[in-house]
Amino acid sequence: MASVYELFYWPTLQGRGELIRLALEEAGVDYIDVARLPVERGGGIPALMRILRSETDVHPPFAPPILKVDGMLVAQTANILMFLGARHGLVPEDESSRLWANQLQLTLSDVVAEVHDTHHPIATSLYYEDQKAEALRRTTLFLDARLPKLLGYFERILSKNTGSAGRHLVGDELSYVDLSAFQLIAGLRYAFPRAMKRIEPDIDGLVSLHDVVAARPRIAAYLASERRLPFNQDGLFRHSAELDLP
Amino acid sequence: MASVYELFYWPTLQGRGELIRLALEEAGVDYIDVARLPVERGGGIPALMRILRSETDVHPPFAPPILKVDGMLVAQTANILMFLGARHGLVPEDESSRLWANQLQLTLSDVVAEVHDTHHPIATSLYYEDQKAEALRRTTLFLDARLPKLLGYFERILSKNTGSAGRHLVGDELSYVDLSAFQLIAGLRYAFPRAMKRIEPDIDGLVSLHDVVAARPRIAAYLASERRLPFNQDGLFRHSAELDLP
Repeated sequence: MASVYELFYWPTLQGRGELIRLALEEAGVDYIDVARLPVERGGGIPALMRILRSETDVHPPFAPPILKVDGMLVAQTANILMFLGARHGLVPEDESSRLWANQLQLTLSDVVAEVHDTHHPIATSLYYEDQKAEALRRTTLFLDARLPKLLGYFERILSKNTGSAGRHLVGDELSYVDLSAFQLIAGLRYAFPRAMKRIEPDIDGLVSLHDVVAARPRIAAYLASERRLPFNQDGLFRHSAELDLP
Repeated sequence: MASVYELFYWPTLQGRGELIRLALEEAGVDYIDVARLPVERGGGIPALMRILRSETDVHPPFAPPILKVDGMLVAQTANILMFLGARHGLVPEDESSRLWANQLQLTLSDVVAEVHDTHHPIATSLYYEDQKAEALRRTTLFLDARLPKLLGYFERILSKNTGSAGRHLVGDELSYVDLSAFQLIAGLRYAFPRAMKRIEPDIDGLVSLHDVVAARPRIAAYLASERRLPFNQDGLFRHSAELDLP
């Protein structure tokens, strides 16, 4: 019998959990997005809290996303993706390619963390409204110099990957890193549409990759379904008019 | 013939590279800390820049630390450690333990990033002196609530690992995660001695782990050698009197 995956993540936002959802969807496996079930059916935030506060789990995670499968808990986004990628053909099989995929995913995780911190330069525990001045200063520098540099790196990797005709980041087929790159572009477009309008002409490979991923049958079906939560102001890709700098 | 490892990292600071140096030292392998060689012998910052700007490498990294071995470049600290750990017995062999070690290491990397950002809440590209007000605000919250929570998590993991009598984080022997935890405690003591004095009574397991690692013969020899750079104001564990809050 195939394993059933249980994903534990905040039920009302995409966040880092979305990188896991995209991999599960592309893999075409059965999974339960546990915290999106009603509380009466064992879901909601209480399901998440039970895992985070569990005294019985041998390997308690620090934070979601968390994947439960075969009695095992796996956390940390890049770690979950490495695990799912190996199990479901979303990464090449050789050691060198797997290290490379993980390396790129960790760099992508760093970008995601920097995007998050545009709204939370002082502390995640504070509301954005309590750190707006610092957020404006951080975001200005991020959009001016840092984001073009980071996206330019991935664009360079894509253009060097001639075996895939520049269509994939790792090897010559789709990998979980491509799925995350799709989400990064989609999220940045939501959060910073004006800056992305400026930057996109310089990253046409990544823009094509975004479109290639969006058009894959399972991903297209997912994006059109109710399983895909909309971007919103609680997620890590937030849109604030005052931070939407050109 | 055994592989010779070449480490590429900033030559004048511990930083994230120190987590790699500790693993190489404990593994007892031959390695060259390339950028610490004189420029005339192919070292210095130019050696680092050549790798970062290389047009010929198939897998160019975004940032150091970078490990070169057997013609392969591996970057991202947790990725390098996963690779070295598997090769040199610094992590158990089963998949579940390896995922767990990687998960803990990624959480530890997140702590290190938060420590770094105490001095750079606005941008890494700006001097600390240009973001002092924001740094004070961030550090206050970090030391008050966030750091005790993060260290408390690792303390809990240690105390749950009864197979090692609470002496190791993963499995019943030393792993690369223990080496990194040693460096975290050592670095925090340098950067925030007053806060650590307050927190340490609540993390006596981690403090013991620090001492266990420091006493391992190869690590002790390394720490006493000139290969170990001192903590300083350029590294990620910085000490600023005005941020050394109780």
